[in-house]
Amino acid sequence: MGRGATGVDRLSFARLANLPVTSSNLDIVAIGDAIVDVIATTDDAFVDERGLPRGGMQLLTASQADELYAAMGPAREISGGSAANSMAGAAALGLEVAFVGQVADDQLGDIFAHDMVSLGVRFETPPLPAPPPTGRCLILVTPDAQRTMNTCPGASHELTPAALDAELIRSASVTFLEGYLWGPECPRAAMLEAARIARSAGRTVAFTLSESLCIGDRRDGVRGMVEAGTVDILFGNEDEVRHLTGCGDLADCIAQLSQHVATLVITRGASGAVAFENGERVDIAAPRVERIVDTTGAGDLFAAGFLAGRCRGRPLKSCLETGALAAAEIISHFGARPETDLKELAGL
Amino acid sequence: MGRGATGVDRLSFARLANLPVTSSNLDIVAIGDAIVDVIATTDDAFVDERGLPRGGMQLLTASQADELYAAMGPAREISGGSAANSMAGAAALGLEVAFVGQVADDQLGDIFAHDMVSLGVRFETPPLPAPPPTGRCLILVTPDAQRTMNTCPGASHELTPAALDAELIRSASVTFLEGYLWGPECPRAAMLEAARIARSAGRTVAFTLSESLCIGDRRDGVRGMVEAGTVDILFGNEDEVRHLTGCGDLADCIAQLSQHVATLVITRGASGAVAFENGERVDIAAPRVERIVDTTGAGDLFAAGFLAGRCRGRPLKSCLETGALAAAEIISHFGARPETDLKELAGL
Repeated sequence: MGRGATGVDRLSFARLANLPVTSSNLDIVAIGDAIVDVIATTDDAFVDERGLPRGGMQLLTASQADELYAAMGPAREISGGSAANSMAGAAALGLEVAFVGQVADDQLGDIFAHDMVSLGVRFETPPLPAPPPTGRCLILVTPDAQRTMNTCPGASHELTPAALDAELIRSASVTFLEGYLWGPECPRAAMLEAARIARSAGRTVAFTLSESLCIGDRRDGVRGMVEAGTVDILFGNEDEVRHLTGCGDLADCIAQLSQHVATLVITRGASGAVAFENGERVDIAAPRVERIVDTTGAGDLFAAGFLAGRCRGRPLKSCLETGALAAAEIISHFGARPETDLKELAGL
Repeated sequence: MGRGATGVDRLSFARLANLPVTSSNLDIVAIGDAIVDVIATTDDAFVDERGLPRGGMQLLTASQADELYAAMGPAREISGGSAANSMAGAAALGLEVAFVGQVADDQLGDIFAHDMVSLGVRFETPPLPAPPPTGRCLILVTPDAQRTMNTCPGASHELTPAALDAELIRSASVTFLEGYLWGPECPRAAMLEAARIARSAGRTVAFTLSESLCIGDRRDGVRGMVEAGTVDILFGNEDEVRHLTGCGDLADCIAQLSQHVATLVITRGASGAVAFENGERVDIAAPRVERIVDTTGAGDLFAAGFLAGRCRGRPLKSCLETGALAAAEIISHFGARPETDLKELAGL
């Protein structure tokens, strides 16, 4: 897991010199849920009758997940997890990336690890002995291409700060943190520790909101972190930023959040996206998608594209456009992992 | 697993009366590999450099499979297995079907069982404790949509005659046997025993050839079974029937095989299909497919459609057309399990 003598020496020297470390080996390191998606199509009645959170996410216990799985139709399994999808996308866009997340030592854990590593994502978090097993997300896709996610987090929520490799975090330009993992105590502590390490090394911290932050008092912790200036780049959709700020109007959300984050990126589904940075607001339209099949991963791939543009020095508008392009690819097929050559698509 | 007192009584009476049993609860019971497909797209060089059997199938040991898996790209997992695909298709076409195949008590085994049962396929073969784990097939799809299959059969080849439920077999109009499972001794014994039970109950025995019959001396066993009149319906593609008969010309293959099987069905890829029955030869063209994505499962779904037509009393030509329709659906997307409403598509 170490970065080797050369990396350590260089970083030690930088610390001794009391200078921010400016060189980096990695573009992004992400911390998030390590999850395999179990994707089935279904009709509206199935979602409605069971009171599933249409278009949203709910957490399930193991027995609830077994019950729902038994009731749902035949499925395909594709590695998932929000920040993990973003890293799969970023790697496909040609970035050097790493992922930190917890799987169990089981078949789904092997699948998750394979899919990361085979994309060139560094993934070195050692698996834990099961139980709990590797997390899975039962995703029901309705005829409107909307996904309803039912997550059984399993090993994913067993991530602790001990799983962090401080050298890895220091070596990455961006540390990217996932809102879905904010709820459980140990992973939250791991993310806060990662943010601390990244900031002390002069790196950028990015955070992506998620609807799971609407549960209980999780919002306050994220607000506190944002207001403390820990987050440099904040990603969210309209609902998420409204919930976080308590503001109904998008302009008010932007006004409030941009006091605390250098770069605010808000996705707006079919209405495109908006970013606010250095007092400048940039809006883009969504690219046309011939046939939307499954919206799973749209936000994750948007973040991947945006960060890829940023890491390659593209201007703000181009970062948004790269994000929108990656999101458009992902919603044109089932699953939240890219199926076409994103690098070529984005001209990166 | 029992069929209940009524079923047993009726069957006993039929046997006593020395009459063929004509009533049946099930349309088809199939015996085959219980396998999860691991599907990745790749370029031609990957297949060529590794000497993989382009368009065909090879068996791998666990360590060979691990090595290939490590080298291949990110994948999606979809339940597979040749005869299992056929039963998934037959269930989607509205038939009452059952499947007998061996999985291990692990996550891939759970996935396989879920996908069968959720389609309405009766699947009651108890899982074995791992190791060996549930079988998987590493499928590499090249840009020409051709699939190259690398099978690590695992638990699948641990099937024994003890796993058979004689009442289940007697209750099905058709017993459908898979050529891929002919190689290993125990599953072969199970299939021969199933054929014996089916025939003694006056049922139809169908057998689907596979390229794995080209390995070693497996061909002679299948020829012996065919020549003994055990098989009523024989499915194969052109290569397979040529290999089985040793005839280069398709007409010679038909002449030879139709001496022994009542119904001979030969698929010819883009050239359509041909059947020979009661001295009558029927040819059909292949339906136009807008975009062929992955040819995995084409033969399996052809058999499903043909048998669905047969079980519903359609004439021979219509059976071929139903087979071709089901095959056309399966090659329009990744994976060998149907994704659209086949029943509606086929007007069944």
